[in-house]
Formats: sequence, C-alpha cells, structure tokens
Amino acid sequence: MAARRLLVDIHTHVYLPRYAAFLRSRNSVPRIFTRTNDAGESEERLLILDNEPSVGRPVGAQYWDREEKLKFMDKHGIDVSVVSSANPWLDFLPASTAHKLAGELNEDLEAYCATSPSLQGDSLKRLYGFGLLPLVPEVTVQSLLDTVQQISGLPHLKGIIMGTRGAGQGLDDDALEPVWEAIAQAGLVVFLHPHYGVDGKAWGEKENGHVLPLALGFPFETTIATTRLILSGVFDRHPTLRLLLAHSGGALPQLSSRLASCIDHDPVVASRLQHDARYYLGKLYFDAVAYGSEELGFVSDVIGRADAFAARAASAGASRAVGEKCRLGSAKMLFGTDHPFFPPLSATEKWKSVVENLEAIDGVEGWTDVEKNGVRGGNALKLFGLA
Amino acid sequence: MAARRLLVDIHTHVYLPRYAAFLRSRNSVPRIFTRTNDAGESEERLLILDNEPSVGRPVGAQYWDREEKLKFMDKHGIDVSVVSSANPWLDFLPASTAHKLAGELNEDLEAYCATSPSLQGDSLKRLYGFGLLPLVPEVTVQSLLDTVQQISGLPHLKGIIMGTRGAGQGLDDDALEPVWEAIAQAGLVVFLHPHYGVDGKAWGEKENGHVLPLALGFPFETTIATTRLILSGVFDRHPTLRLLLAHSGGALPQLSSRLASCIDHDPVVASRLQHDARYYLGKLYFDAVAYGSEELGFVSDVIGRADAFAARAASAGASRAVGEKCRLGSAKMLFGTDHPFFPPLSATEKWKSVVENLEAIDGVEGWTDVEKNGVRGGNALKLFGLA
Repeated sequence: MAARRLLVDIHTHVYLPRYAAFLRSRNSVPRIFTRTNDAGESEERLLILDNEPSVGRPVGAQYWDREEKLKFMDKHGIDVSVVSSANPWLDFLPASTAHKLAGELNEDLEAYCATSPSLQGDSLKRLYGFGLLPLVPEVTVQSLLDTVQQISGLPHLKGIIMGTRGAGQGLDDDALEPVWEAIAQAGLVVFLHPHYGVDGKAWGEKENGHVLPLALGFPFETTIATTRLILSGVFDRHPTLRLLLAHSGGALPQLSSRLASCIDHDPVVASRLQHDARYYLGKLYFDAVAYGSEELGFVSDVIGRADAFAARAASAGASRAVGEKCRLGSAKMLFGTDHPFFPPLSATEKWKSVVENLEAIDGVEGWTDVEKNGVRGGNALKLFGLA
Repeated sequence: MAARRLLVDIHTHVYLPRYAAFLRSRNSVPRIFTRTNDAGESEERLLILDNEPSVGRPVGAQYWDREEKLKFMDKHGIDVSVVSSANPWLDFLPASTAHKLAGELNEDLEAYCATSPSLQGDSLKRLYGFGLLPLVPEVTVQSLLDTVQQISGLPHLKGIIMGTRGAGQGLDDDALEPVWEAIAQAGLVVFLHPHYGVDGKAWGEKENGHVLPLALGFPFETTIATTRLILSGVFDRHPTLRLLLAHSGGALPQLSSRLASCIDHDPVVASRLQHDARYYLGKLYFDAVAYGSEELGFVSDVIGRADAFAARAASAGASRAVGEKCRLGSAKMLFGTDHPFFPPLSATEKWKSVVENLEAIDGVEGWTDVEKNGVRGGNALKLFGLA
C-alpha cells in the first residue's frame, strides 16, 4: 500500500483548543496574550520561550483550528498528517495537573483525528496523532504507565511526542526504564522534539531574532538528549524501541563518528555499550525536516552505514556498493513540515518551508523515485502501521 | 608542488615550555599539578576545564617536547605539521599579562619551527605554526593589531589560532572589525578552535567522562561562533578573510540549510546579509578531523554547493554534474590529528584517532586520488603558501 504514493506529514503541530485556552489563562510563560498591534488591531501572541525576543509570535486559527490544518494540507498536497501537540507541552505543570491534562488532551486529539475526513477512496483518515505523557518533575512512574496505556488504547494515536526533560533529570533517567519498556511493548513511536535549546548566554548580545535558538539551539538539544540516551544504554536494553528524531536528528549524524571516537578514548564509557555509537543511529528514525538535499542524503548515509558498526558485523558496510547505504538509510526518513511554524513572511500560494523540504527530498542524488516516495509517505505508513 | 603528495597535519597542538611552566605556577584552572597515582608514581596532570571529570588528564613530554612531536609525525608518516598552542590559550589572563605572554609565545613558536629539521630534499621545514593574540576582556585594539603585526613578521607563523570569546563579547563583537581587517590584509589564516563548549547543565547528572563536552560541546561552540560571525556580516565586509574551522566545522554543515531557512523566516535578520547563509560555508576552510568518510564527503558537498547560493548565482549549483560539488568542496578541507589529544587507551604502533582520520579520507566515495591527496596535504601547502 506504500505504493499508493501518499504525501504524509509526520512533523506538524497543534495547540488543541483546551491547551490554547489554558495558555490564555496564564500570566507567565508559556502563555497566549492579547495586545493591540501597530495597526491598532487586537492580536493574540504566543510566548513559549523565556526571554523570547520580539514579544513572541502572532498566533491564530492555524494553531488550533482543524479546518486550517486541513486547508494547509490541501494547499500542499498532503494526504495524511500525524499531528502532535507543540512545545512546551505540559513541562511547566505540577504532576497532578499534568496527569489530568495529558489524559484530556489525549482524548481531545483522538477525537480530532477520529472525526477527521477519510482519505478519498481509502479507509485511512486524514489525521492521526501523537499523544502526550505527563513528563514533569515528581510524576509517578504509575502515572506515566497509565498514560502510555491510555494512548495505546486510543486507535488514532500512533505514538507519543516527548521533550527532553523527562521527569526533570532528562531522558537518561533510570526511573524511566519501565516507561521505555511499556512504550516499546505498546509499539508506540516516540517523537523526540526540542524546546529548551541550550543556555542562552551562548547566543551573545547581538540582536539576531529567533535565529540562533531555533537554527542551532533546537537541534543541539535533540542531539544531546539522543546521545545521552545512547550512552545510558537504553537502546541496548530496549532494541525494539522506535524513536523518531525531529529536524533530522539535529547534529547527531554529523557528530556520530566523533562521538564514537570520544567514547573509544574515554575509560569511563569505552566498554559500556554493546556496539559502536554509530550502530545506534540505525535504530532511529529521522524526519526529513532539514531544508537541503545534501543534508538528507547524508542522514540516509549514516543510517545506512549503521549496521557496519554492529559489534559482530564490523565488515558488513565495507562490502556495500556505492550508494546502497544511502538508499537503505532513506527507509528510516519521513517527510514533515513543522506546520504551523515557519509561516511565509509574505503571503504565498505555498509555504516556502514546505516547498524547500519537498524540493530537498526530490533533489537527493543518491535516492531513486522509490526512496523518494518512501520518504514522502510510504515510510510513514509503514512506521505507523497505516499501510 | 602539491603533487609532492606530502602528509600535512594542520590540527596539532603544543603547550610550549614557557606556557607549561606558567600553568604549573597556577593554583586554579587551567593548571598543571603533580600527584601520586595509584601505582605510587608521581605524575603531572592537566586541568583545563572547570569541574573537569576524573581530575583532568595525565600530561607528559608529548605536550611540550618538540622531539615527541617529531616522533609522532614520523610514526604516522606526517611530513609537515602546522602547530598551534592548545586551549585555553591566554583567555584567563588580564590584558597586560596576555599581551606580554602572547608576544613571548609567538617568538617561542617561531623558534620552535625555524630550528626544526627541513623536509628531506626539500626547502620546507617540518614545523610551521599558528600564533596567538591576547584576546581577553579589556584588551586594546592596538594590542591586538600590534600582535597581528608581530605574527605576520615571523616567517614560520602562517596564521593565528583563536578561541570563541574574542575580547569577552564573542567574535561578532564590532570592536574586532579592525582586527579582522588586519588579519585579512596580512594574509594570515585564522584557525577557529573551541574550548568552552556549552553550559554543562545540558550534560545531566550521569557519569559519562569527557564524552559529552568533547563530542558535542566542542563542535557546538565552533558552530555557534561561526554562525554568529556569519550573522554579524564579517564575511560580507571581509571577503578575503580565511577562516579554518576545527573538527570539520562542528555541526555547521548539517545545520546550514536550517540556518538559511530560519534567517529567511525571521524579520529581524531576513534582509541583513548579502547572500544565503549557505554561501558563506564556501568561504570557509574545514579540517578533516571528523573520524568518518560519510562526514567528510558531506562537508565537501556543502562547501561545493555554496556558490549556488550566491545572491546572483542561484542556479550555478543545479547545473553541476553529480559528484562535482563533492570534489570541488574537498579543496577547502585539510587533514589534522588533534595530537597530543585522543591518545590510544592501550599502546599501539599508530594512534587509532590518526588512523581513523586517514582511513576516513581514503574512504570518501566522491573523491578521486587527486582530491584525497589534496586533503592529505596539497590543500594545506596551498592555503599556507608553502607550495
């Protein structure tokens, strides 16, 4: 069925009405507030980052209205979207509130998807979703396991979107072991997504808008969280865990051989893992939100080379034909848009950010049409059990 | 003369005896101290990072003795090394001390190189160097300009190694404009090298040795500093400035299309630069210290595609034949070892870190022998005017 050549967007966000209303009720970040703009009009703005420049960003119906999501999909030829709540999720809430709101938002998202139109002449819906866990400090493991159970019982939720803080100690926290086990057993896909970046002092004093935290901080955060997971042995202990990395894994692919070398040379960790660090990149899935063909081709190369770094298969890769690694790796890459973020600065028929990511897929030199169609949709249908 | 097929190491460090003695005299980081190890032997250890795990690293003659550098070069078939002082350079000193010590260390390094053996049957020396500037808070521009002048007058110093703090405000500090101008006019190559990484809270509580700050923090720091330089317009104002990035540019190549997209979508910076962000990667040089063939091939791809993103040449790249970008980009990549760091955990004939970087160059699918020989040495001879 992957041969249906659907365009599937696996990186697309929503602030569900219940969540948006909650943000409007708050007086501190994250919050939605109303102000009168220079044109004298009333506008709602969203603040999601501390000390966010230019008083946050304007928000409107595209952030919460399902009709706007479907219009965006139609405009760009997107058949199916796997929608996730946007950062910062529930990170800022006390455990009891987070648990209750996670349950309600998961039910809301199930309804958002279940009542969406069906794909013409197809049993598929236009919308599927990633649920939320109450991953906040002082949450109980039972609360997390109960929510994993809830999500796995909601037929249109195919995974869980997750930030990098875990229960306050990061995702390499031993306390999360039973949660990884439950997620792996439920067959849910974890979509790992950044929010915090790195310490803002790194950006300096110059006014550069959102560029440094978004272009660098976000991918750095994803890279750090995934590397800490690798070092913690989570992928050795849970080989069936399926983790999808936002923004094509950030910087992890380009730093993966350096990571392997640093591990090799550090007595503290040199003998900890079952495999070379590069092996674990082959266990991961990567969205294709990198805005360039060379980037996408490279990510597929490092995925495709991974099994050459398995402890007992250190020569497998060497024997591969030129280009085979790249095609092989593409099977773990999935198209995404990051909607409703990165809207065009000026009104256009299509969003530049979306067109760029589609052109990037089309332009990868090492991929045939088969691989390109997989990245556009076939790989997602397979990963989420929709094929 | 590049056809001589020399192996040239452009990323190799020294703690000159004067600098090592200075570190021994200190009671706070950075410092060299003596302790009795578990075997009851006295050993010197180097602490260069605050809160460094495992009480720093053992140091010995390979850090300061030129004979050890030459032995290392002979063992690995390295004909010529362009040696640089290692981090943290002079960053921790008051301006007056930094100015005086920079001048003395530049003279020391000139002597270290000038009195080194000549390459057999060749006019070249075995050793050349990168000088130091007193880049510390409260340094005067005149002090920096005088030191640039000093370095440009020392015949065996071919460039300047530089951290990312500048005069305390980073390298995008307007106050450094005359320094960039002077460096560009002197034809000196700036070797940009990390030391601080990013805020250590990002690494979490787990014991992972030096892995996270070295494998991720170092490349992140280089990526941030270079991105801030791009955003500040330094490369628009100083198109002849030659900047060599440590560790193959860190994460900048993989994040460069995302950076371009974030700039495009941010009203604060969207119209600031003369070119698409990806264009500027073609103005940069990258060491080949990435430990993997796929990484090196990818870096050469993003260098090679850069001119397609020049403001008035947006189609140049599209017309290139498959693989041409990769070969073209290799001309800005240069072999390095990071000696004396990354020593083997167990005694070996050759250092694994060096062998890996040489094998990585040899294994790049998109490079012919011509490109590989260039990266091994020809490109360095050309960049430093030694050919």
